[in-house]
Formats: sequence, structure tokens, C-alpha cells
Amino acid sequence: MEEDFHLCPKFEAAFQLLGKRWTGLILRVLMNGPKRFKDISHLIPNISDKMLAERFKELEAEGLVVRRVYDEVPIRIEYELTEKGKALEPMMNEFQKWAEVWMK
Amino acid sequence: MEEDFHLCPKFEAAFQLLGKRWTGLILRVLMNGPKRFKDISHLIPNISDKMLAERFKELEAEGLVVRRVYDEVPIRIEYELTEKGKALEPMMNEFQKWAEVWMK
Repeated sequence: MEEDFHLCPKFEAAFQLLGKRWTGLILRVLMNGPKRFKDISHLIPNISDKMLAERFKELEAEGLVVRRVYDEVPIRIEYELTEKGKALEPMMNEFQKWAEVWMK
Repeated sequence: MEEDFHLCPKFEAAFQLLGKRWTGLILRVLMNGPKRFKDISHLIPNISDKMLAERFKELEAEGLVVRRVYDEVPIRIEYELTEKGKALEPMMNEFQKWAEVWMK
């Protein structure tokens, strides 16, 4: 067995983070630009508001998403990818290509 | 909100599949070539044999991995990525790059 092969803990940690149900879709939606909570919820039909709020908390804590509050009447709140979040786009695009070819 | 944006069900299904704990690591190890059960188990320190066997069943059912039995004494059994599994390499490489930059 090739002795020089070793597994990268960062790779596993990243998979743990992005592997959670809905996370990939939420990130994919935000790759299309900042969005309000209800717009995202509308675009991901089966996700509950409770789950979406929970995933946002995790994604904000991980520095992948930021919540912007606009001082308007009524107040406007949008969710947006950070640099760290946007940096996932190449991986997402490769994954999309794979899914289109191989997933039934 | 951009009306032409829509989410791809194949993308979500693919995330469900690969998002399971350990799956990413198992695929990553096999990207390095066919391996025996105990070699894989050795390379992923914290995974139980029971879990590894379970993930292999799923990955075989999804057509990502194939189990080869070599008629030798003693019998040799190896796990190997299929074309579908190997096609994940570009995504994995992008993900590795992201993890190295962004994961602590």
C-alpha cells in the first residue's frame, strides 16, 4: 500500500460541514446572489423554516454566510455568501456536472 | 428574484449521497487505487468495521464502488472505484483545495 498516502483532516472536516442535509442546496441558491429568508425557503420547497434558520446559524458560525440588515421600512434582511462561501463555487460546479451525468 | 434560477434535484440527491459521514473519506482513499478492507480501515483511523461495511454496501448499491474477489490462496478481496466513482475526482480535488485554504 502506498505509504505516502495520507488522509487530510481538513478534508474530512469540510465534508462533515457540507454533508449536512440541505446545506449544499442553501449554498447553491446563495451562489445565485444574496437572498431573503423567504426567497430561499421558496426556492427549496421541502425545507422547513426551522431547519433553514438552523442551517443559517451553522453557516454563519462557520463564516460561510453573512446576514445583512438594511435599515429600510420595512427592515430588509438578506443572506449572502462570504468569500469563504463563494470559494466553494468551483467544487459546486464540478459536483453539478457529475450529478447531471451520473445521478438518475 | 431571478425567475430562471431553479434548483437541480440531481444536485440535492448527490449531496444526500455524498454527505453521509465517512463517505467522502472512503471515496478519497479509493481515488488512490483499489484497496483491501483492512487497508482502508487502517487509513481512516476512527471508522468502525461495521460502519465501513455499511458504507461499502451503500456505495456498491449506488454504483460508485465495486468489490473484486481474486481467486488466490488466501482469497483476496479488493474495493475499487467504478467509472462513476472515479468521475468524482475533479470535485474532490476542488474540495481539497478549498479545505486547505479555508478549514482551520
